[in-house]
Amino acid sequence: MTIGRTTWVIVDGWIPPGSTGPAPDFTSHDTVCILNPGDNTADVQLRIYLADQDPLGPYTLTVGPHRVLHQRVNDLKDPPVPVGTDFSVIVESTEPIVVQHTRLDSRQAENSIMTTIAYPA
Amino acid sequence: MTIGRTTWVIVDGWIPPGSTGPAPDFTSHDTVCILNPGDNTADVQLRIYLADQDPLGPYTLTVGPHRVLHQRVNDLKDPPVPVGTDFSVIVESTEPIVVQHTRLDSRQAENSIMTTIAYPA
Amino acid sequence: MTIGRTTWVIVDGWIPPGSTGPAPDFTSHDTVCILNPGDNTADVQLRIYLADQDPLGPYTLTVGPHRVLHQRVNDLKDPPVPVGTDFSVIVESTEPIVVQHTRLDSRQAENSIMTTIAYPA
Amino acid sequence: MTIGRTTWVIVDGWIPPGSTGPAPDFTSHDTVCILNPGDNTADVQLRIYLADQDPLGPYTLTVGPHRVLHQRVNDLKDPPVPVGTDFSVIVESTEPIVVQHTRLDSRQAENSIMTTIAYPA
Repeated sequence: MTIGRTTWVIVDGWIPPGSTGPAPDFTSHDTVCILNPGDNTADVQLRIYLADQDPLGPYTLTVGPHRVLHQRVNDLKDPPVPVGTDFSVIVESTEPIVVQHTRLDSRQAENSIMTTIAYPA
Repeated sequence: MTIGRTTWVIVDGWIPPGSTGPAPDFTSHDTVCILNPGDNTADVQLRIYLADQDPLGPYTLTVGPHRVLHQRVNDLKDPPVPVGTDFSVIVESTEPIVVQHTRLDSRQAENSIMTTIAYPA
Repeated sequence: MTIGRTTWVIVDGWIPPGSTGPAPDFTSHDTVCILNPGDNTADVQLRIYLADQDPLGPYTLTVGPHRVLHQRVNDLKDPPVPVGTDFSVIVESTEPIVVQHTRLDSRQAENSIMTTIAYPA
Repeated sequence: MTIGRTTWVIVDGWIPPGSTGPAPDFTSHDTVCILNPGDNTADVQLRIYLADQDPLGPYTLTVGPHRVLHQRVNDLKDPPVPVGTDFSVIVESTEPIVVQHTRLDSRQAENSIMTTIAYPA
């Protein structure tokens, strides 16, 4: 049984500029959540698409077999992804994976959350 | 590799009538988020469906290759989309795109957010 | 071009028992949002599935061609759907439609919202 | 007519560590919502995938024909699922079902909710 797909898309990326409450739990973030349900290590590349310049990345991640990686976009480096800026993400993997997108927005005193399974391309 | 589809549907459109906090970040809005992952410019048309009258539009957008457009429904013009009114959106594109729907509701002091990948028709 | 499907499923139905703020905008609700994109009137039936008894309904709705209906589950009658009770919804239509599920929870002073495109069966 | 699938995936599992308000309604939770639309009892297994150890489970659930089960991950036992810890869920059923994932986060005074139909594998 093979579960998952190798290409996924998140469209509404945006890191809220500002946070309320103790880090890291209440730090505003966009997260790319990845499950590798298979028996082989998945090499995963993220490309960050923007409104008015060429894509950033690829950023490389490794997800072991039968393992989960919840990657905050905030924590990507070289270069960092700008906050308060519209972006999308294309996720490509060497192995079938499943991807879900979640935001925590804590700019105000009470946090707000949203989520969706990403689009399997 | 072709990523995306040319027709997408958002069903629960509704622009919250009222906002709390500094504009534009905290202005209540419904957003149609579009990624054009391909190499050609996408000409995109939005049609706004309503409960008791014929659809509005089409509204025309242009999304460059490898670019993102997060279009607030609030900002559509000629005619503007009424606030506090139930609507749906059909998105049609000349090129494959991916679409996600997001709402920020700041009618009260603390904002609330929700999102879903749109329906690929 | 035919957009939509004739059977849709919402799994996490639950009407929050209690509301804060002026009705009807801030009344806690679960909503079944329906778009009929086609040229013919859609006769739609909702069946409400429960944890420990047989399904309720069918409840009958009519959605005109090129029209939107955002139906609050709270407003279904004969019988009403109990609040604070887990349920699911199967939506069946004579014409292709698209369905999205949304909840507004205003039990506390600040409302919270969530949404997802329903499952096209 | 057969509605549903036998394998579903939730990727962004996380039980918020802390709650505000009266239990159980305002207890922070991640919920796996299951509808069994068919005529036969569904035997359902949940496996919980983690970031740095082998999966937990399987946890066994039973969902009767035409019945709903909204299972809080918090309430799984032997072993319990750790709070404040990233996880994913693979749901496997002997009968076609439909699955939706919902979180209520009440760590702060005002709760926040999010939902998505799970990924049908």
